[in-house]
Amino acid sequence: MLLLRCCHSLTRFSPLNTKRYQLAPVIASCAIRLWSSYSSEDQKSHHHAHRLRWRHAVAGLLAGTGAVLAYGLHHHQAEQSGSNEVQTIGKTSALPIYTQEEVTSHRSIEDGVWVTYKGGVYDITEFVAMHPGGDRIMLAAGGALEPFWSLYAVHNQEHVLEILSEYKVGELSLEDQKKQQKVKSSDPFSTDPQRHPILRINSLKPFNAEPPPEILSDSYITPSAIFFKRNHLPVPQVDPDSYQLQVEGLPKGTLTLSLKDLKTRFPKHTITATLQCAGNRRSEMNKVKQVKGLNWGIAAISNATWSGARLRDVLIAAGYSKDEAKWARHVQFEGLDKDVTGTTYGASIPLNKAVSEEGDVLLAYEMNGEELPADHGFPVRAVVPGTVGARNVKWLGKIVVSAEESSSHWQQNDYKGFSPGTDWDSVDFKSAPAIQELPIQSAITTPADGATVDRSAEEVTVKGYAWSGGGREVVRVDVSVDGGKTWQVAQLRSGDKERAPEPSPPPGQAWAWKLWEVTAALPAEAEELEIVCKAVDNSYNMQPDSVPPIWNLRGVLSNAWHRVKVKIREDESEE
Amino acid sequence: MLLLRCCHSLTRFSPLNTKRYQLAPVIASCAIRLWSSYSSEDQKSHHHAHRLRWRHAVAGLLAGTGAVLAYGLHHHQAEQSGSNEVQTIGKTSALPIYTQEEVTSHRSIEDGVWVTYKGGVYDITEFVAMHPGGDRIMLAAGGALEPFWSLYAVHNQEHVLEILSEYKVGELSLEDQKKQQKVKSSDPFSTDPQRHPILRINSLKPFNAEPPPEILSDSYITPSAIFFKRNHLPVPQVDPDSYQLQVEGLPKGTLTLSLKDLKTRFPKHTITATLQCAGNRRSEMNKVKQVKGLNWGIAAISNATWSGARLRDVLIAAGYSKDEAKWARHVQFEGLDKDVTGTTYGASIPLNKAVSEEGDVLLAYEMNGEELPADHGFPVRAVVPGTVGARNVKWLGKIVVSAEESSSHWQQNDYKGFSPGTDWDSVDFKSAPAIQELPIQSAITTPADGATVDRSAEEVTVKGYAWSGGGREVVRVDVSVDGGKTWQVAQLRSGDKERAPEPSPPPGQAWAWKLWEVTAALPAEAEELEIVCKAVDNSYNMQPDSVPPIWNLRGVLSNAWHRVKVKIREDESEE
Repeated sequence: MLLLRCCHSLTRFSPLNTKRYQLAPVIASCAIRLWSSYSSEDQKSHHHAHRLRWRHAVAGLLAGTGAVLAYGLHHHQAEQSGSNEVQTIGKTSALPIYTQEEVTSHRSIEDGVWVTYKGGVYDITEFVAMHPGGDRIMLAAGGALEPFWSLYAVHNQEHVLEILSEYKVGELSLEDQKKQQKVKSSDPFSTDPQRHPILRINSLKPFNAEPPPEILSDSYITPSAIFFKRNHLPVPQVDPDSYQLQVEGLPKGTLTLSLKDLKTRFPKHTITATLQCAGNRRSEMNKVKQVKGLNWGIAAISNATWSGARLRDVLIAAGYSKDEAKWARHVQFEGLDKDVTGTTYGASIPLNKAVSEEGDVLLAYEMNGEELPADHGFPVRAVVPGTVGARNVKWLGKIVVSAEESSSHWQQNDYKGFSPGTDWDSVDFKSAPAIQELPIQSAITTPADGATVDRSAEEVTVKGYAWSGGGREVVRVDVSVDGGKTWQVAQLRSGDKERAPEPSPPPGQAWAWKLWEVTAALPAEAEELEIVCKAVDNSYNMQPDSVPPIWNLRGVLSNAWHRVKVKIREDESEE
Repeated sequence: MLLLRCCHSLTRFSPLNTKRYQLAPVIASCAIRLWSSYSSEDQKSHHHAHRLRWRHAVAGLLAGTGAVLAYGLHHHQAEQSGSNEVQTIGKTSALPIYTQEEVTSHRSIEDGVWVTYKGGVYDITEFVAMHPGGDRIMLAAGGALEPFWSLYAVHNQEHVLEILSEYKVGELSLEDQKKQQKVKSSDPFSTDPQRHPILRINSLKPFNAEPPPEILSDSYITPSAIFFKRNHLPVPQVDPDSYQLQVEGLPKGTLTLSLKDLKTRFPKHTITATLQCAGNRRSEMNKVKQVKGLNWGIAAISNATWSGARLRDVLIAAGYSKDEAKWARHVQFEGLDKDVTGTTYGASIPLNKAVSEEGDVLLAYEMNGEELPADHGFPVRAVVPGTVGARNVKWLGKIVVSAEESSSHWQQNDYKGFSPGTDWDSVDFKSAPAIQELPIQSAITTPADGATVDRSAEEVTVKGYAWSGGGREVVRVDVSVDGGKTWQVAQLRSGDKERAPEPSPPPGQAWAWKLWEVTAALPAEAEELEIVCKAVDNSYNMQPDSVPPIWNLRGVLSNAWHRVKVKIREDESEE
């Protein structure tokens, strides 16, 4: 803490400009990221004042290494409710009152960076460069800190609040404090849960949103709050005490299970599995030619641990056996979410996936060690690892063993792939199979497209994710900084950096993604980098090179090489 | 037959030139193929005489439709031994004696097309255009008809021999007739079996060869004689009566099985499965940058029916159970083929593939309904459907259930994929997994690269194969005639045209390829077509667009879009 305070003063009053060219690579790479973020947020204002602040930022980062260590050594469990320190901050000042609108107008280095916390308003412009978490802090600019701090429990420490208190400039108006409480209405979406403000919203009703890419690859296990949300209908309100799951279609008749039955009658099984929306990266197809669907970026994919009863065990309890159900080919799922006509969401999966011992299909009641959040299917959802998100039916109400696929719109007339030559006049949805397993996928989460790196940094660190469907393990990610002419192999990881990697899964059961990272030298002559990634799974499936040949009218299965362009800023001679 | 003889006379004496522009599409497409073949065989001789012969050819094909029907209606089972009719042809003439060398010098329309059959020499130049099987007949030019007729049983009919007799021009010298008998030597490959002369040889010792692509897609089930051959070592001579298969590594000790045991103690299981060499299409990688390995074209892939005992059943008989072999992860195979040091060929597959009920791994003793040919592993081989050819160990001597993969060179230091940036100085074979399941693949078998189509044909028929590893079914093949700008969807088939298609396999057990065909209009302005195909499997895996980004130092896994260039010949104004 002392170190943090020390560097804090240091950067405010005596920027260490002369050290710029002696930065250790780790700091340089942080600095690049920070710079990239500024540049993309505010590409047209590279004036002198900004340049000066940049020097502060680099110096702050240099000194800030100690702060990162301090945070890392002392972090403890988050406390959700306010602490004594907060009261101290909030109540003892006699500062001006600001409206939320005024706060919101301060969300850049140029205009100042303001945030609110428990009724207080803080101008943290000067602190941004010192933030041990880097430019992530800008995501809260102009808004409340609480949702971010509840996500990143490292902030729940006394010295963090002490630092914050130094930046207090006012109080948030009482009216705006009250507005933070939710207003109910007759809107069918009015009972939808509150969501994390960091999410990038593609559709509000139904709610569809994804986290910022650079946040996504921060955690091997995606925190539930920022796990991408993909709802087709309003979130149903389900009472866990009266909840019933129907299992139908078997000779013994319907089996009805309560939530307690599910939790007590069947062994609890836990897997780590990545879910991906069929429309992930659809925005890249839209750039080729307009498609129908939500304009997802690269983050309609997330990774979590899931616990629940195995579907296999439940089906066997309901009377399933190979001999008893020779006619069966599919297992249908029906959700409790419904539209105004009462039609529920539905989908099905092949029977062999459902009953296979290695299939690991769950009726999950926990996500990341806690009960399922409302947006993720509370109280019970299907988790079908290796299979497109759309079949992982949430708010599960009914399971039907059947000879036929689900007759739902989403199984029959959506979530299918077509040739680029197929248009809405010629499409025959019966001609294509429903998407189940997804193909090999990867994307670059940092740097962002349009970011800038400094020539003096000499190298650029590229990060991303890679995953394949059907339990196929990602075995290699190739990264190019020259648009695909030359390639280097990225380092893969399964698990968070500070922990031991998860053990290698049995063949065919690699349900979780891999995060990857590679550091590439900046080519001497290049003014711009075209950074490209492509992954390979253990069936040696590769991603296609380009988007147009895989374009399809629904914009699904967008898994071409991911490309981002990054500018190299040359050093100025007067420095 | 009458029709055939009739058209024969007709085309010899009165070519139907005036009909050229009224050809039905089916005939036009045959004509294109014939023309293509001539053009690629003999690209520099488009002189007037050739043009005249071309008119004969078209007319012959027009009339030949009836012949095709006649063949189709009357064909019966092949008789391998000589028939009475043959004696009639061979013995009643007093014609000149020719050497094999003289016969071999006649292998083009310009020089004449000669063939031998049971000691007779035939000049079939004039018949070529009338051959109901199209330009396939040119494959026998300058050599013996027997191997082709044994492959295509349709020829074993009286009227075929009658037609042939009309073309007799002499007798083959006795000396050359004797030379057709095999000469033994001390060469370890001297006991290798005789092979079909149609095969394109990539390496003689060990024998590695593939069929011509246009022949490959003629049959859904590839005849064993032309099924691609991929031997790593000399073909071992195995006595079926004393043959023993050892099954080792299980707590109960070694199980020894005779060929009779395999056939009688276990249910006989039959599957149709495509095998593909990891190096199929390596020649396309060689065009990017030299790789190490046999320069395979696009036909190191073939499809056959295989019958034998399930490996699963044999392992259970040897004492395998999940509980008895908790340590087990792999099943190793050892061949009886060995090098001069006594090292045998070896490979392994994951245990879950070997013991899965749906894995369909066979210890096969039959191929296409007959005992295994010597080149394909007589008397017993592993057939691991959905898995790279290299793990389908032939001449199987030993099976070992183990915690480790096979330690063989071919498992550890070969048959692995690497990044295009990895060279022989930097390669670490331990860093990549052994290839097991292969990725999605497809290729164009006709027209051939460099062929020519006639503008008047107005369209071109494109044919090929498509297959994916791991039991993933091919669900779509897209074909482009403009280098990938626009695409149309090909028609897929599972089975031969004259028979009902094979029933759709259960999910995950699509072991056999699909043949495909599409007819595309010739673009009005184009002088050349770049025909491209790409396939999609039911996990929606796609082929990569181009070769350089998947190039690897061993030239394996070459599955980029297949491309052939075809010239369009404009009609001449004087015609």
